[in-house]
Amino acid sequence: MATVADGGEAWVIEAVRRRMGPPPTGAIGIGDDAAVLPVPPGGRILASQDMLVEGIHFRRDWMPPERIGAKAVAVNVSDMAAMGGRPFALLMALALPGALDRGWVGRLLDGVAEAAAGAAAPVVGGDTVGSPAGVVLDMAILGTAERPILRAGAQPGDWLVVTGPLGGSAAGLACLEGGAVWPGATALETAALRRHACPPDRLDAGRVLAGCAHAMTDISDGFWTEVDALVQPMGLGAVVDQELLPVWPEAAEVARRVGAPTDAPLHWALTGGEDYELLAAVPDERWPTLQRELWAIDVEAVVVGRVERTPGLRLVRGGQRVSWDPASQGGFDHFGRR
Amino acid sequence: MATVADGGEAWVIEAVRRRMGPPPTGAIGIGDDAAVLPVPPGGRILASQDMLVEGIHFRRDWMPPERIGAKAVAVNVSDMAAMGGRPFALLMALALPGALDRGWVGRLLDGVAEAAAGAAAPVVGGDTVGSPAGVVLDMAILGTAERPILRAGAQPGDWLVVTGPLGGSAAGLACLEGGAVWPGATALETAALRRHACPPDRLDAGRVLAGCAHAMTDISDGFWTEVDALVQPMGLGAVVDQELLPVWPEAAEVARRVGAPTDAPLHWALTGGEDYELLAAVPDERWPTLQRELWAIDVEAVVVGRVERTPGLRLVRGGQRVSWDPASQGGFDHFGRR
Repeated sequence: MATVADGGEAWVIEAVRRRMGPPPTGAIGIGDDAAVLPVPPGGRILASQDMLVEGIHFRRDWMPPERIGAKAVAVNVSDMAAMGGRPFALLMALALPGALDRGWVGRLLDGVAEAAAGAAAPVVGGDTVGSPAGVVLDMAILGTAERPILRAGAQPGDWLVVTGPLGGSAAGLACLEGGAVWPGATALETAALRRHACPPDRLDAGRVLAGCAHAMTDISDGFWTEVDALVQPMGLGAVVDQELLPVWPEAAEVARRVGAPTDAPLHWALTGGEDYELLAAVPDERWPTLQRELWAIDVEAVVVGRVERTPGLRLVRGGQRVSWDPASQGGFDHFGRR
Repeated sequence: MATVADGGEAWVIEAVRRRMGPPPTGAIGIGDDAAVLPVPPGGRILASQDMLVEGIHFRRDWMPPERIGAKAVAVNVSDMAAMGGRPFALLMALALPGALDRGWVGRLLDGVAEAAAGAAAPVVGGDTVGSPAGVVLDMAILGTAERPILRAGAQPGDWLVVTGPLGGSAAGLACLEGGAVWPGATALETAALRRHACPPDRLDAGRVLAGCAHAMTDISDGFWTEVDALVQPMGLGAVVDQELLPVWPEAAEVARRVGAPTDAPLHWALTGGEDYELLAAVPDERWPTLQRELWAIDVEAVVVGRVERTPGLRLVRGGQRVSWDPASQGGFDHFGRR
């Protein structure tokens, strides 16, 4: 096995440069002290950053390296989608243990390069460093938006809209924790693993929603947490209808296979996190037109609830309040508390 | 001791938000899916990223957390200086073990906040995540430059100019490896530790040099390596005069104290790395004026050599070639090879 330490920094930099292709027209890319980028017109740029840490966000024995690289890009792209924006560049900082197999690193970079190309967000710079323990992959993304949609701005009466199924990522995680290995998993497991490892590209949906949404975010930390983040700072509340919630269809079967309780799919959908669908607060009179536009681009967006004046989040079913304590389920806390 | 895990993600985010202050006018900062930034005029932006990993770039028992935070900012600012640019925003991704003392994290963030304010580069976003092992601090920086100066562009006959003393950072590292502890070190050790931990702010110098430099970079990986990076890709070479090299004045005394060979200061200056002075290729007729401008802003820039047509790097002393094998010294390779 050829290790990263054998090749040294020169190998890593060359491995990155070879895969990431030339910089965009008019830009200076990888290899200088900083990238030089022409800014698309519009006058404002979007910038965000998402870090994946081995042992926290991924395990090397749980998925192929291409998927880890692609997911790092996808979660950053999701932040642009959540603003109604369009990415134009990525930076990538990569910390690698010296004993790591160079073949594994090459495949990780293949995943980054393919996903970056798919999002039209070329990797124009970054950093490559050693790591005494696990792999760390931190990407920063730059984009533009004609009309950036913030988390703040929801109004009483707005529909709460999500752009696709929820709970699939948590179902995939349950499969991994139950011992599923990718590749080699069953068809059902693979479907769940894909929900976990391959966040959807919602850039087009984000731009359509940005046409009229009052507020928007992506569902990274769990639906319930994200709804709260949209309404609580505005002094508002929300009601969510359990029967409207687009629980990922295969979740019930996954729950049976992994021996999870029958209500696991609901909890996965409400608090599981990492679904990376968009959540938007949309004025109700605009919704019918908007939904048609979204379905026209194959985004099966649905209403799941409504923003209300009364603070707090309420889950209802058949018009009745459901007694459900989100605190008992918790969202994902990166630092170990639930 | 209150740990990061006790406080959870909410504590970390609030600790960051409280220290980083409000976003710049017209911007949306920390707390949304992405920062929204007005673009300074000029139509082009600079972007780079530098990651510090515990156990590779710093040790928690080697320096106060404020210095680690400030250094993370400074090395990113140095990349802007190396382009002749001016930063306007920072993103910060921070991976923290749950068992870490919250007081330590607060002091790290104090260091980041103070350095960011000093560079007029507010932290407008980023990510906070858990870490199974050490601390990782990855920052991305955004800036502008009227005339970005690249590494490429050196011409035969250009003077090679550096903006300050070399080898001080390696001397500081030698002190740390010899057991010096900060605070509590001797005055000499503290001076060396400051060279190691507190990279100089060369933003003003970078902008002055950008007025006429053909090529420029910052000295992060070692002077010799950076000279090579300036000339080798152009098919050029360089001669460096050992007697012109601004070896950090206290290096000889540090070498004596730590029991290093008498030629250690020269090697520290040539290959030690992390001095974060600027290295520029400057047309010789412009140099006298430029040097006066630099001295006027207290930057003691000096000529150390000249770009030549003949490929390869040559070290001379008193007009004679010095037999010196840089490969035997090596630069710093993050992945463990020298």
